[in-house]
Amino acid sequence: MVKAAILGFGVVGGGTAEVLTKNRDLIARRAGSEIEIKYILCRRARPESPFAHLITHDIETVASDPEVKVVAECIGGATLAYEYVRRCLEAGKSVVTSNKELVAEKGFELTQLARKMGVNFLFEASVGGGIPILRPICQCLAANEISSVCGILNGTTNYILTEMVQMGKSFELALREAQQKGYAEADPTADVEGIDAGRKICILADLCFGKNVPPSAITTEGITRITPADIECARALGYKIKLLGRAMRTGPNSVTAFVAPHLISRAAPLANVDGVMNGISVRGDAVGEAMFFGPGAGSLPTASAVAADIIDCVRDPRTRTYAGWWPSEPGYVTHPDKISCRWMLRTDSPLAEIAAAFTGVRFINAPHAPAGEYAFVTGYMSGEELKAKTAGMNVLAKYRVLD
Amino acid sequence: MVKAAILGFGVVGGGTAEVLTKNRDLIARRAGSEIEIKYILCRRARPESPFAHLITHDIETVASDPEVKVVAECIGGATLAYEYVRRCLEAGKSVVTSNKELVAEKGFELTQLARKMGVNFLFEASVGGGIPILRPICQCLAANEISSVCGILNGTTNYILTEMVQMGKSFELALREAQQKGYAEADPTADVEGIDAGRKICILADLCFGKNVPPSAITTEGITRITPADIECARALGYKIKLLGRAMRTGPNSVTAFVAPHLISRAAPLANVDGVMNGISVRGDAVGEAMFFGPGAGSLPTASAVAADIIDCVRDPRTRTYAGWWPSEPGYVTHPDKISCRWMLRTDSPLAEIAAAFTGVRFINAPHAPAGEYAFVTGYMSGEELKAKTAGMNVLAKYRVLD
Repeated sequence: MVKAAILGFGVVGGGTAEVLTKNRDLIARRAGSEIEIKYILCRRARPESPFAHLITHDIETVASDPEVKVVAECIGGATLAYEYVRRCLEAGKSVVTSNKELVAEKGFELTQLARKMGVNFLFEASVGGGIPILRPICQCLAANEISSVCGILNGTTNYILTEMVQMGKSFELALREAQQKGYAEADPTADVEGIDAGRKICILADLCFGKNVPPSAITTEGITRITPADIECARALGYKIKLLGRAMRTGPNSVTAFVAPHLISRAAPLANVDGVMNGISVRGDAVGEAMFFGPGAGSLPTASAVAADIIDCVRDPRTRTYAGWWPSEPGYVTHPDKISCRWMLRTDSPLAEIAAAFTGVRFINAPHAPAGEYAFVTGYMSGEELKAKTAGMNVLAKYRVLD
Repeated sequence: MVKAAILGFGVVGGGTAEVLTKNRDLIARRAGSEIEIKYILCRRARPESPFAHLITHDIETVASDPEVKVVAECIGGATLAYEYVRRCLEAGKSVVTSNKELVAEKGFELTQLARKMGVNFLFEASVGGGIPILRPICQCLAANEISSVCGILNGTTNYILTEMVQMGKSFELALREAQQKGYAEADPTADVEGIDAGRKICILADLCFGKNVPPSAITTEGITRITPADIECARALGYKIKLLGRAMRTGPNSVTAFVAPHLISRAAPLANVDGVMNGISVRGDAVGEAMFFGPGAGSLPTASAVAADIIDCVRDPRTRTYAGWWPSEPGYVTHPDKISCRWMLRTDSPLAEIAAAFTGVRFINAPHAPAGEYAFVTGYMSGEELKAKTAGMNVLAKYRVLD
């Protein structure tokens, strides 16, 4: 019998308690030991909950109890959660978390601390919710030199974009409906501005390439400026617009990581990851491309990953934190505007200006395009080159094309 | 420095030697130790190979060398490979393998032996080639009661079907071209009759549901009887025909597992897994559905998985064979004809006979269908019920519909 504690009793914490209870027997068989929840840390009393008797309000109750071997952090944020996780690791407990903000900001430091203490710090649920992705990358693809990772990492924005693409809705309407359905928060900034996806691509870059990529080092662009006209142009080309987190090697000791809306061919598997689903593609020199799709959020899917980490800690209590995660030097993260790709542009500048700036562009015949507006796809060029070429033009929209 | 040996120097063995050599430094970092190939077991001398100096013809050289800690079996088949794997496990070496025939037939026994000897027996590459799938199921989804697993498990047949669907080729022509391209063997029986996919679905059923499903207990149907007319009917419905391996729980202590061609909606992610790619969907009570796509075969992708298993054995030499794999009782495997689904039928029996046998069928208006031929989709019924209803009819084709 191993005793565990859950910090936070919201969507993920509650789901984790539910999964550990409902599947107690099969989890015991697979973990090699029964797992019992001893405490749930929560600010309020929850007399209506079947777990009411487990609730404590004091982190010290958890941290100072030598019986508790594994702690699941499901509070969120990087302040209180950070303090509590440190406290539990220092007390010699393994910690698992679904908290992408905490892992993106402090994961490297906490992994070092866990290793020093001889315990585990695992965070499968922090990227892709229930989708198995961090273990597959770190274990199953361990023989690969990974060249790139790319994914739809945020279910809220993917839901909104799917509604815009399939139903022709505006961003504002699709966002309002997502909020009504509980897919978007009252303050949707972290989702729609790409900040949440940015944290996840940082974690993926950390583990794929082995050096720390702090969120402050990357650029994120969200979906707030995407218009139905942009979506129509993409459709006329046989493309969809998806918000992608991407990270790739740019040199022997440099990578780029960023979040931006992209045009992606409708024939590409990632283009068919719709609604609140997430999808992640990893390219390695031996495997080629491997892809992982599934529910990127939600109570039980995320709890599935949190509980898997708890099982791993119980099955093998020694340190198996992610190996090969090192500090990065200044200059490790390349700005994405230095990376070459094709671009789709919309502009109402005169044709003569377009012709003067670009050669060999492919114009798009979008239905309903207003007179005097042009949309076209460029050849390969960096974001910096594109900026230089369009310096005098009135650019209505620009998107990277994923090839 | 850990010494390893590779048994077999064909496509997978050669790829494994290549990956271990090419990515030696990053593998050393991730494994926590350098990995050196000490022997490659091969019947012939291979003077042209860069690994010529490692070649040995005698399994005893490998098995009796105490320096060798990990052995990768890449011979194939379940006779010589079985004998050699037993020998190496008994000699106290961890063994990894890409050999689905061996694992499907003898995996349970060899896992028991490995556990007894305190070593590892891992076989990530035996299903889905380079796609991470067995660890994700056994570790990342360990908190789930898994209800079903379903996949495109054979690249050869998926390539042939893709050519038939996209290019309108006959089975015979598509097979001949696949053979010319090296995607199909001279004797394609194991692929086109569904035997290879059957071995893989047995392994998936073993690990998803925890009890042994021997290949002899399941039914497999291949793709040799699929005609362009069948594909046209599927297309008219918005479906593709794919060869699926499926396993699911059928009761508290029973499962079914089988291989058969299915109609699958073009909107389903698995339907877009084309060519030699594989795709696997796993449903669990917490995660919902998680999907895994990638190269299901090939030298380097398969080597990617073999090398990952070797790294795991080096990183942690103690037993971590798949837990929760038990013998099964008689009656554990339900015949798939007892499972209810919708069916697509083609028949040239008179309409009156169809109407007498079925109510509420949905007829398909396939272009180019000959006069007097009918195609339709039934309601839900088991294969046994379908047989009873069509006892007097001339059934030209029947397919399960995946819902």
